[in-house]
Amino acid sequence: MSLKRKKISVIGSGFTGATAAFLAAQKELGDIVLVDTPQGENPTKGKALDMWEAAPIQGYDSYVKGTSNYADTADSDVVIITAGVARKPGMSRDDLVQINQGVMKAVSKEIAEYSPNATILVLTNPVDAMTYTVYKETGFPKNRVIGQSGVLDTARFCAFVAEELNVSVKDITAFVLGGHGDTMVPLTRYSFAGGIPLETLIAADRLEEIVDRTRNGGAEIVNLLGNGSAYYAPSAALIEMAEAIIKDQKRILPSIAYLEGEYGYHDLYLGVPTLLGANGIEKIFELELTDKEKTALDQSADAVRNVMKILV
Amino acid sequence: MSLKRKKISVIGSGFTGATAAFLAAQKELGDIVLVDTPQGENPTKGKALDMWEAAPIQGYDSYVKGTSNYADTADSDVVIITAGVARKPGMSRDDLVQINQGVMKAVSKEIAEYSPNATILVLTNPVDAMTYTVYKETGFPKNRVIGQSGVLDTARFCAFVAEELNVSVKDITAFVLGGHGDTMVPLTRYSFAGGIPLETLIAADRLEEIVDRTRNGGAEIVNLLGNGSAYYAPSAALIEMAEAIIKDQKRILPSIAYLEGEYGYHDLYLGVPTLLGANGIEKIFELELTDKEKTALDQSADAVRNVMKILV
Amino acid sequence: MSLKRKKISVIGSGFTGATAAFLAAQKELGDIVLVDTPQGENPTKGKALDMWEAAPIQGYDSYVKGTSNYADTADSDVVIITAGVARKPGMSRDDLVQINQGVMKAVSKEIAEYSPNATILVLTNPVDAMTYTVYKETGFPKNRVIGQSGVLDTARFCAFVAEELNVSVKDITAFVLGGHGDTMVPLTRYSFAGGIPLETLIAADRLEEIVDRTRNGGAEIVNLLGNGSAYYAPSAALIEMAEAIIKDQKRILPSIAYLEGEYGYHDLYLGVPTLLGANGIEKIFELELTDKEKTALDQSADAVRNVMKILV
Amino acid sequence: MSLKRKKISVIGSGFTGATAAFLAAQKELGDIVLVDTPQGENPTKGKALDMWEAAPIQGYDSYVKGTSNYADTADSDVVIITAGVARKPGMSRDDLVQINQGVMKAVSKEIAEYSPNATILVLTNPVDAMTYTVYKETGFPKNRVIGQSGVLDTARFCAFVAEELNVSVKDITAFVLGGHGDTMVPLTRYSFAGGIPLETLIAADRLEEIVDRTRNGGAEIVNLLGNGSAYYAPSAALIEMAEAIIKDQKRILPSIAYLEGEYGYHDLYLGVPTLLGANGIEKIFELELTDKEKTALDQSADAVRNVMKILV
Repeated sequence: MSLKRKKISVIGSGFTGATAAFLAAQKELGDIVLVDTPQGENPTKGKALDMWEAAPIQGYDSYVKGTSNYADTADSDVVIITAGVARKPGMSRDDLVQINQGVMKAVSKEIAEYSPNATILVLTNPVDAMTYTVYKETGFPKNRVIGQSGVLDTARFCAFVAEELNVSVKDITAFVLGGHGDTMVPLTRYSFAGGIPLETLIAADRLEEIVDRTRNGGAEIVNLLGNGSAYYAPSAALIEMAEAIIKDQKRILPSIAYLEGEYGYHDLYLGVPTLLGANGIEKIFELELTDKEKTALDQSADAVRNVMKILV
Repeated sequence: MSLKRKKISVIGSGFTGATAAFLAAQKELGDIVLVDTPQGENPTKGKALDMWEAAPIQGYDSYVKGTSNYADTADSDVVIITAGVARKPGMSRDDLVQINQGVMKAVSKEIAEYSPNATILVLTNPVDAMTYTVYKETGFPKNRVIGQSGVLDTARFCAFVAEELNVSVKDITAFVLGGHGDTMVPLTRYSFAGGIPLETLIAADRLEEIVDRTRNGGAEIVNLLGNGSAYYAPSAALIEMAEAIIKDQKRILPSIAYLEGEYGYHDLYLGVPTLLGANGIEKIFELELTDKEKTALDQSADAVRNVMKILV
Repeated sequence: MSLKRKKISVIGSGFTGATAAFLAAQKELGDIVLVDTPQGENPTKGKALDMWEAAPIQGYDSYVKGTSNYADTADSDVVIITAGVARKPGMSRDDLVQINQGVMKAVSKEIAEYSPNATILVLTNPVDAMTYTVYKETGFPKNRVIGQSGVLDTARFCAFVAEELNVSVKDITAFVLGGHGDTMVPLTRYSFAGGIPLETLIAADRLEEIVDRTRNGGAEIVNLLGNGSAYYAPSAALIEMAEAIIKDQKRILPSIAYLEGEYGYHDLYLGVPTLLGANGIEKIFELELTDKEKTALDQSADAVRNVMKILV
Repeated sequence: MSLKRKKISVIGSGFTGATAAFLAAQKELGDIVLVDTPQGENPTKGKALDMWEAAPIQGYDSYVKGTSNYADTADSDVVIITAGVARKPGMSRDDLVQINQGVMKAVSKEIAEYSPNATILVLTNPVDAMTYTVYKETGFPKNRVIGQSGVLDTARFCAFVAEELNVSVKDITAFVLGGHGDTMVPLTRYSFAGGIPLETLIAADRLEEIVDRTRNGGAEIVNLLGNGSAYYAPSAALIEMAEAIIKDQKRILPSIAYLEGEYGYHDLYLGVPTLLGANGIEKIFELELTDKEKTALDQSADAVRNVMKILV
C-alpha cells in the first residue's frame, strides 16, 4: 500500500553513519537500517538498539535496525553511503582513493541488487570520485546518484559568519560551488545575513579568512579531534538531502551532480546547485559566473579529474 | 535582562555528554557549554565546533562551546554531569564507586563555585551514590540535585513493548521505581499500551522476559558495543529532564531524589516519581505499593546503601 | 513515483476544516486541498492562500489549495469530512441528523469517484451516524471509514486533569469509550498522571465533576462562543488520526469504528480503541469491562442506534 | 526564580489574535493570555479553552487563558497588539486611523500599568502610525515598541516566488523595506532562490507582477474572504518576531522601527532591517540603496507621515 513507511539504509555505522541514522529517525523519515561489515555487526546492532531505546523519549516512531546483511536493506527508498576509510591527520584525501573505491564497488553491487529503485547519497571521500564510482558501478540513472559536499561547506561558512556577526544562523544564506575542501568555490557575492550582502557587513580581508577557514573546515575538526573526523555537521547535511528527496521538497541545495555539459563540463561529478525532490536531482541550475569564479571552478574540476585518474 | 538565553553545561564530553549537548542544542534549550579535562580539551572543542557547524542545517540557534575551563560554565541554569569512568564489559557497577566519587567531588566544587544557583542532573554510575555525593559536596538544596535512571529504564521498557506489540512508542506508558539496573522495580500493573493494561496484551511470562531485558538493558548494549556503553537513550533521558526544568514543564518523571521519609527511607537517593519544574524536584509522589513491590523497593534501597558504604 | 507527496483533502472550510488544513500543513503531511461549496469557494481560496503565505514563516512545504471542484481532490490519500451544519446553542445533536446525512451522501459520492483508495475521517455530527452513512454511501471497506470523537474527548479530559493537578499535559493518559458527548464512557480506572492512577490523586467526587465537564465539553465551548462550536481541539484530533495513517504510525487511538461483533455489537459505528496505520483501522482492541462500564457502553450504543433510526 | 515560564499576552481575540495565541502555544513560548473587551470576554474564554483542550494532542504545555481583565496580563514578557477595527473591502487603511488610535491609547495605558518591562509588537493598521501611537502613549524605550509588516510582506513574496518556480519555500529569501502595502519597497536585487538571484530565474516583467501581487497581498485576501482579512500569515509573522525576542535569537528580520536619523528619517516608525533579540530591536541595519530604492523609500516615509497627520 502506498502509505507504508519509507525506508532509509545507511551504509557504514561509524560516527557519521550512526549519527545520520539517528537524525533520520528523529525526523521520522521512515524506518532505518544501519549496515556495517560482519566484523562490525555487533557494535552496529548496539548503536541501533540504543537509538531505538531513545525513541520513547524523543517521541519518534522510526525503527532502527542494525545489521551486516544487505538483505535487510531491500527496497530502500534512499541509501546513504558513509562507508570507507576516514581521513586521518596528515593523510591527504587522495590517499583514500583506491581503498575507498573498492568499498564503493562492493557497496554498489549490494544496493543495485537489493534496492534497484533507490536514490543514493554518497559521503565517502574523495566524494566526487566516489560518487562517480557508485554511478558507474550501479548503473543507476544520474539523477539517483548524488554526492554531498556543498551542504556541509555552506553550513560551515554560515556557522562562522553567524558567530562573527553574533546573529542567528537561521538568517545566513550562502553559496558554494565546486569540489569539497581546498577547491571549494564560495560565491561570497551570493552570501547574505538576513538578506544583507555579507560584503557590506564584514571587511573583505576578514571575509576571506572565513572563506579560508571554511575551505579547511574538515581539517580543523580532524586536528582538534586528534583521532577521527567531523560527523555531526556531515550527517546533518546528508539527512537534509535525504529529507528533500523522501518528502519531495523541491529544495535548492548544492549537490555533487553528474554533469553532461552543464558549466561546460562532461562526464564529471562536481558540486553545483540542484533541485532535490522525489526524483533525486530534478534539475541543475547554471549560474552566470564571473571570470574569477569560472577559473576557480575549472581548477576545482581539474582537481576532481586528477583524483579520478587514480581510480582503477 | 530576564529574556537572556538559558545556559546548560555538560560535564564530560564522552559519547553521552556530547550527545546530550547536541540534543539540548537541537531543542534550543539555551547555549551549551561542553566541558572536559585539560587533556581532553581539543577533542571537546572539536565536537562542539562540529555541532555548531550543524546548526545552520538543523536550524537551531544554540551556541555550543567546548572547553576545559569551568569559568566558561559560569551561571549555568542546569549542569549535567556525565563525567567519570564508563562501565566496561565484566565490570560491576560497584567497581566504579570510588574513582567516580573522586570525579564527583572535583566537579561539585567547580559547579558550586561557578553556578551556585544551578540545578544539577547526574548520570555518572553508580548513579544513586554519585548523586548523593554531589548533594553532599555542593551543599545545594535537595531539590536541585537530581539523578537520572528511571527515565532511561522506562524508555527501554517502552521500546521493547512497542516492538513486541508492533505499535507506536508514542502510546506506551510505563513506570519504574528504585535503583538502576538489577534492582529496578518495574510496576507492570501501571504499564499500558494506548491505555490498555499490558497485562491483558502480553502473556505474563513474556512480560517478565521484557522486564528482565529492561533490567539488563545497559549490559545488553555494553556487550554489543564491545567497547563502550549506551549513549543515545541515556542522553535523551537527561535532556528530557533538563527540558522539564528549563521550560518549567511540571513533568511527572521518575528521578533519583533525596528521600527524607518518603516511602519510609531516610538520607537516601532513590528512584521515585517526581514533579520536575523550574525548581527542580518540586514534589515527590508516594504511590501505594503492593507488598511484593515494597519488598522489591526495600531490596533496591539496600543495594543503594551497600554502594554508599563504599563511599570514602 | 513512490516518493511523490501525499495528498490530504479536507471537506468543509469552516473553522474546523480550515484549522485542520493548517495543522496538516504545519506537519507537512502532504499537499492539502480545502474544499467547500461553490458559494463558499472564494473564502475557501482566501483561507488557503493565507495559509500558503504563512508557509515561508512557519517553514512548511505543504501547498494548500482552496477549491469547490472535487476534481482537485483526485487521488487523495486521506479525506477529512468536516462539512455539515454546526451545532448551535440550544440545538440538540439529533436535530442535525437529516440535513447532515444529505451532506454526507453528496460528499461520499465525490470521494468515491475521485479518491477510491482514500481513507476517510469523519467529524460531522452526530458523528457515529454520519460515519455510518459515509461507510454505506462510499462502499469503502470498514477499515477505511473512521469517525473521530474519542481523541477529542480524551484530550479534553486530559486538559482538565492537567489543570487540576498543575502538571504537564504530556503526562496525562486517559481512555474514553462509546459515543461522543453525553454517552461517552470514560474509563477512569485507566487514567493516569505520569503513570500514577488518577483515582489516587484526585478525590472521587472531584474526578466525577471532571468527567461530567468532559461529557459536556462541546456544549461548554458552544455556550462560551455564543455563535459557533469548538475547532482547535477537534481539528487537532482529526490531524493526529490523519498523521497516524499517513505515516503508518501504528498508534493506539480511540476511533469510531464499524463493529461486527466486537464488544457484542453488530452493524454499528461506536468509539473503541483501535490501531491506526497505513491501512486505516488495522485492529480493534477489546477491553475487559466492568459491569458498570458495559452497561454504560450499552447505553451509548443504544443512543447511537436511536440516532441511526432518524437516518433516511 | 529565573526559570519560571515566560508570559505572552495577545490583545484582541479576533482571528489574528486567536491564531497568534495558538501559534505561540504550539511553540511553547510561555503561557498565553488572550485579552478582549468585556463584551467579547466569553468568546475569548471559549477560544482559549479550545486551544488548551488541543494541548494534550499537540503536546504543548503552554496554558492559554482568555480574559477581559488586564490584571491577568501582569508582568508579560511580550505583548502583541492585534486589537482594532479590521480593514473591510473598499475601506482604505487611512480610514482606520482615528478609531484604532483610540484603541491603541487605551491598550497602551493598560500595558504600561501592568507590564512595564514588556516588549510590544503591534499589528493593528495602519501599523506605522499605530506603533508610533503606542510608543508615545506607553513611554517605553524605542527598542521595546515594534511594528510588524515586513515579515508578512516578505513571506507573501516568498510564497508567490516558490509557487512560481515550484521550489521549496525554505529556499526563498527576500527583502522588503518601507511601509506596509502600497508603499512597500521590495529589494528584488536582494531576493534569491537557493542563493540564486531571482532576477536570473524569473523574467523581469513577471517578477514585477509578483511584486505587485505582494503589494496588494492584504487586499487580495480581503477580497476573497469577502468578510474579514488575512490572519494565518499575519499571526505567523507576529509569532516569528515574538520568538526571536523571547528566545533571544538575534534574528535579522524587518521591523517597523523608530528611526532617529537612520536612512535620513527622524521621529518616524518605518520598516527597516533589524536585529531582534532579548532587548527587542537591538540594532537597525542601514543598507546602501540605489537612487530608485531611496526614492521609493522616501515615498513610503511620506505616506506614513501623511497617515500620522491624521492622528489626534
